[in-house]
Amino acid sequence: MKTIKIPEATIIRLSVYSRYLAQCDRRGIVTISSNEIAEGVGVSSAQVRKDLAYFGEFGTRGVGYNVKDLHRHIMKILGLNQKWPLVIVGAGNLGTALSMYGGFRERGFHVVGIFDDDPNKIGYKLNGVEVFPISKLKEVVAEGGAKIGVITVPAPAAQEVANALIESGVKALLNFAPVVLSVPPEIELRNVDLSVNLEILTFNLGYRRGID
Amino acid sequence: MKTIKIPEATIIRLSVYSRYLAQCDRRGIVTISSNEIAEGVGVSSAQVRKDLAYFGEFGTRGVGYNVKDLHRHIMKILGLNQKWPLVIVGAGNLGTALSMYGGFRERGFHVVGIFDDDPNKIGYKLNGVEVFPISKLKEVVAEGGAKIGVITVPAPAAQEVANALIESGVKALLNFAPVVLSVPPEIELRNVDLSVNLEILTFNLGYRRGID
Repeated sequence: MKTIKIPEATIIRLSVYSRYLAQCDRRGIVTISSNEIAEGVGVSSAQVRKDLAYFGEFGTRGVGYNVKDLHRHIMKILGLNQKWPLVIVGAGNLGTALSMYGGFRERGFHVVGIFDDDPNKIGYKLNGVEVFPISKLKEVVAEGGAKIGVITVPAPAAQEVANALIESGVKALLNFAPVVLSVPPEIELRNVDLSVNLEILTFNLGYRRGID
Repeated sequence: MKTIKIPEATIIRLSVYSRYLAQCDRRGIVTISSNEIAEGVGVSSAQVRKDLAYFGEFGTRGVGYNVKDLHRHIMKILGLNQKWPLVIVGAGNLGTALSMYGGFRERGFHVVGIFDDDPNKIGYKLNGVEVFPISKLKEVVAEGGAKIGVITVPAPAAQEVANALIESGVKALLNFAPVVLSVPPEIELRNVDLSVNLEILTFNLGYRRGID
């Protein structure tokens, strides 16, 4: 397999395409063109073709793509042809919100445990998922087969939590704490900065003002 | 002003550069090269130069950029040379988490009101910000000068909340509800799908496995 670098923007669009294709499938649509996908999700059809071309040949010229096949194929590219058990560390508001987030389950992400060091929270169930003490991390990760750890603790605790998650055997970290984490190169790390979303809005508001 | 389309990935990187430049400034660094910025944030130096080139000429060839000037300039491009009052509708776990999110205040985003239709929540203060009934939306938006509304209600309520926010005078919406909203073209809308972040991780885990 050739090791070409796939732009992250392509991965994000594949995620969008797959949701749109699932919608089309539910509506009973059997085949679809790149133009129709493009129109449905608001990008150019050249972009759709370019994104898909990273992963080989799909569809038939003049006929388009089979909706079910393309959906299945993209889900496989995204690694979503399997379930992904995950653990959340930090049972505060954000951790609690994420444990109840319907969008996760829909895409195959399944919370097998939430962890906190507050004795008042331990033993409670959030959305059916038990809150465990951090000391149980290794055991729950192993039993649940979790490969992903989500960090929703305050910034000062985040590095220690990342270390504990890696030690417990997870391979990927999604970090919501506003701090730069140091992890070994074999660990996948993604930082979510919620304010970036607001900055895209303020850029657009200002830029539009400039061109109006 | 020419109306060229700026890629969203560029805006996201500008946000990252500005944080790095702020860090450099705090450490007393006066000038910086595109190579050093690139290394600091983990992109290529050609990418840094390309991103900045959308917005004109910065820096001096062979000398680099003045850290303070470039930081100020990027903040202005992002629209962050001003404060952005905002309102949050939905005082559930996610709304509460966002109202306490330190990263917002740091970048000039300031929550002036949280809204909910649960009478048990109204009047409470979250992180010093009062929870108001939806009926007060127009009044609080006007008084606080909010241009941005954040939607953290369940999906079935999101469109109605979006309509109320637009009616109240906000110009941009950040939507966390997993539903497609319909808004007039002059309203900036951004949807946040938290599971996309997990899908980038699962893609990388699978892709790495493929090339190892």
